[in-house]
Amino acid sequence: MASDRIAHAGLAAKCRSAEEAAAMITDGMTVGMSGFTGAGYPKAVPIALAARMTAAHDAGDPFRVKVWTGASTGPELDGALAKADGVEFRLPYNSDPIARERINRGEMQYFDMHLSQVAPMAWQGFLGELDVAVVEVTGITSDGQLIPSASVGNNKTWLDRAKGVILEVNRWQNAALEGMHDIYYGTALPPHRVPIPLVRADQRIGQPTFRCAPDKVIAVVETDAPDRNAPFTPPDAAAHAIAGHLLDFLAHEVHVGRLPASLLPLQSGVGNIANAVLTGLIDAPFENMIAYTEVIQDGMLDLLDSGKLRMASATAFSLSPDAAARLNADMGRYHDKLILRPQEISNHPELIRRLGCVSMNGLIEADIYGNVNSTHVMGSRIQNGIGGSGDFARNAYLSIFMTPSTAKQGAISAIVPHVSHTDHINQDVQVIVTEQGLADLRGLAPRQRAEAIIAHCAHPDYRPALRDYFARAMAGSFGLQSPMLPGEALAWHQRYMDSGTMRS
Amino acid sequence: MASDRIAHAGLAAKCRSAEEAAAMITDGMTVGMSGFTGAGYPKAVPIALAARMTAAHDAGDPFRVKVWTGASTGPELDGALAKADGVEFRLPYNSDPIARERINRGEMQYFDMHLSQVAPMAWQGFLGELDVAVVEVTGITSDGQLIPSASVGNNKTWLDRAKGVILEVNRWQNAALEGMHDIYYGTALPPHRVPIPLVRADQRIGQPTFRCAPDKVIAVVETDAPDRNAPFTPPDAAAHAIAGHLLDFLAHEVHVGRLPASLLPLQSGVGNIANAVLTGLIDAPFENMIAYTEVIQDGMLDLLDSGKLRMASATAFSLSPDAAARLNADMGRYHDKLILRPQEISNHPELIRRLGCVSMNGLIEADIYGNVNSTHVMGSRIQNGIGGSGDFARNAYLSIFMTPSTAKQGAISAIVPHVSHTDHINQDVQVIVTEQGLADLRGLAPRQRAEAIIAHCAHPDYRPALRDYFARAMAGSFGLQSPMLPGEALAWHQRYMDSGTMRS
Repeated sequence: MASDRIAHAGLAAKCRSAEEAAAMITDGMTVGMSGFTGAGYPKAVPIALAARMTAAHDAGDPFRVKVWTGASTGPELDGALAKADGVEFRLPYNSDPIARERINRGEMQYFDMHLSQVAPMAWQGFLGELDVAVVEVTGITSDGQLIPSASVGNNKTWLDRAKGVILEVNRWQNAALEGMHDIYYGTALPPHRVPIPLVRADQRIGQPTFRCAPDKVIAVVETDAPDRNAPFTPPDAAAHAIAGHLLDFLAHEVHVGRLPASLLPLQSGVGNIANAVLTGLIDAPFENMIAYTEVIQDGMLDLLDSGKLRMASATAFSLSPDAAARLNADMGRYHDKLILRPQEISNHPELIRRLGCVSMNGLIEADIYGNVNSTHVMGSRIQNGIGGSGDFARNAYLSIFMTPSTAKQGAISAIVPHVSHTDHINQDVQVIVTEQGLADLRGLAPRQRAEAIIAHCAHPDYRPALRDYFARAMAGSFGLQSPMLPGEALAWHQRYMDSGTMRS
Repeated sequence: MASDRIAHAGLAAKCRSAEEAAAMITDGMTVGMSGFTGAGYPKAVPIALAARMTAAHDAGDPFRVKVWTGASTGPELDGALAKADGVEFRLPYNSDPIARERINRGEMQYFDMHLSQVAPMAWQGFLGELDVAVVEVTGITSDGQLIPSASVGNNKTWLDRAKGVILEVNRWQNAALEGMHDIYYGTALPPHRVPIPLVRADQRIGQPTFRCAPDKVIAVVETDAPDRNAPFTPPDAAAHAIAGHLLDFLAHEVHVGRLPASLLPLQSGVGNIANAVLTGLIDAPFENMIAYTEVIQDGMLDLLDSGKLRMASATAFSLSPDAAARLNADMGRYHDKLILRPQEISNHPELIRRLGCVSMNGLIEADIYGNVNSTHVMGSRIQNGIGGSGDFARNAYLSIFMTPSTAKQGAISAIVPHVSHTDHINQDVQVIVTEQGLADLRGLAPRQRAEAIIAHCAHPDYRPALRDYFARAMAGSFGLQSPMLPGEALAWHQRYMDSGTMRS
């Protein structure tokens, strides 16, 4: 008998086991799954699918699929399918360690995309057809509308584009999520696109549910399983120092009149540095703040609780177990303070530029000119992916990147002569902050940027080598707009690969 | 006595010589000049200013200014001021050879910017104050409105932001330009930004003239001097081959239903390859095309004349002397087919994504993963600047880059193991075309992109070395998402610097 979460009789009649549903997915298919940063991903069907893949492989038969999602998911999806070697192609973002290993061993094709572009590109058609959507929802209304789960991601597009839809109705998700979402149905392919009518981060422009023709639904699977909520890593001294420099800078910008006292809509990446900044904002002299971001992390919730943050718009939750429990216990209180939107809206360049976001993201390395590598360790090994950082950094009112100045106990400098891979060109990087200090690069030409970054951001242990490289580049470069010695520019990376340290 | 181009008595009374006007600009000032690709730049005041600078330098006195423009200008502006060593800082784009030399000798700070961001960043304030605007106009109406010239660029912003305004009224510009411009006055700083109400390239959303409070005008200078119109370089065999591959691809996209038969709004860079593509479109099976682009070049005019292009929206003209004469002789006929807008509108990410532009730009080099360098020869010597290519490439419906596969008689390969500088990350590069062929990179992961680019785009002479590098990178890379050998990735560039060729 179907649960009370499934109020539509026709869909209740389609309840199947995860194994029965997974059997509808076959070798070579393209599958669009829900999920964004470990929230709202399907938890039963992918595991059952992985079991079928393993069985097929054991029998000598091929069984791999193409997997599209919102962003990262959980071990029950990316981990299970990667472990079964069942993923031939993956987009647009991954943070699962098993999948990461497969990708970096060359066993899985990974198309690392701007998150705002996934839905429109799926509509464009060059990615091919979408065979099946597997989408977690909180419930199904009596008229067949779908109540979204803890992330929205690309679900609207998967439901619209897929030939068949498998729904996971997860009763673990709080029923009070209903009404928190804002699903905008006004997108189109050109020449039929119109302005997106959002002018404030707290505005609703859509409807609270997904539409999905019931006859497209090929199976409904009931689940009762928690999201993957990664434990919270408390900020360390470096994170606090970075937050301190950044908060001083924001206060200065308010003081000189370049930012309002409520700042502008905040976008924040995840991790302990981001959390230190958000927590630091609780005691900072800014009131009535608002967030227009990708995910709601612990620090964002703390900031809401403090009363300093008025509301937050995002596409997903990304909470620790403690914070998830806090949210769940008191969902009603957050109801008017949180809006979850499709990622093509949360990350839309049109909206990010219009709202004027203050964008704060992490990086792997930056070079002396402020080009940023967010994705590839030593230029080749992907960590996670570009995610939404490009959507925000290029269109933000203020584009800030943060990192400790070294990694691996000082063996890696986050400031290098030349980035080994570029995700954010220097034009899109306005401020770099490390525990050493902050470089305000706005309006500076490349040689001026180099002076500022070496002086303010690099670790003192690496400053002499950076200054030495820059001085020699000034003498031996082909041109002096962005002085460079090609034969040596990436030597620090090669040295790390050869000797385990960038130090010479 | 003021000319009939100056119908406002108060402004007519402010007529001065270029020398008198130039004397209002002093050492250390920031000057916003009109001009975009050699059209509509001031032609008298900068020369008089350069003379004053030279005289000051001869007397041992400092005299340098910061120069902001729309994009490139003419020899009478960038050339004259650079020759006088009168420019301390320049933004956002330059193509003048004398200024380029100064920049690449490290004698001038050059802030190379996304063209859509110049006006909003000038409003943000971190670039500092704008002391004087020097703007060429076609005429002044009786109520003091300014009739724009052959480019719009950032003129609206310079007129609004500058403390004092010097107008050059150039009677060489065709009086029939009046009414061709669309100046949108709806922009603002956040949190006051609203949707830009443009949904079709041929739509007018503003007014035909600039507003400028007459009491801000400190001088009016009458001129009668032509724009710099560079002679047209006829397309060579490589350009025709590139155009052929690209037109076949567009026809295929129409055939499979991914583009309408009228295509989508075209954006095209300048140069003989772009002209070959535009000319090729005359005989291609597409009707009722439209352009939403930066500049109107010869090929665009030919395409208009053919009846295949319905209209073109841009921010400036960039015509050969012949084409300029043709346009001038018959301006009335083009009146309804051309719209010139501020560059913050012609290049606005919101509009480029909404309209779904088909974007076609040149490059200096691309690497095997499709990262593109548009600006820095050998990673350090700037050629021109990023211009609007980033605005278009990231937001286009279809982002295409074109180049001959080699340069310098084969001594330089346009396809390299690793770009020496990145302007366009691989996510923003969907199609690369050389005379060898076309690589459709949409939806491909990095290793797949490498195979396609080497096979279809690289010159056969360089293919073995690229395949050899890629194979060795597959064996020796830190990770295999984007295989790379940091110690060798830029060796081709160093070899060219050392020996004059990338060939080993």
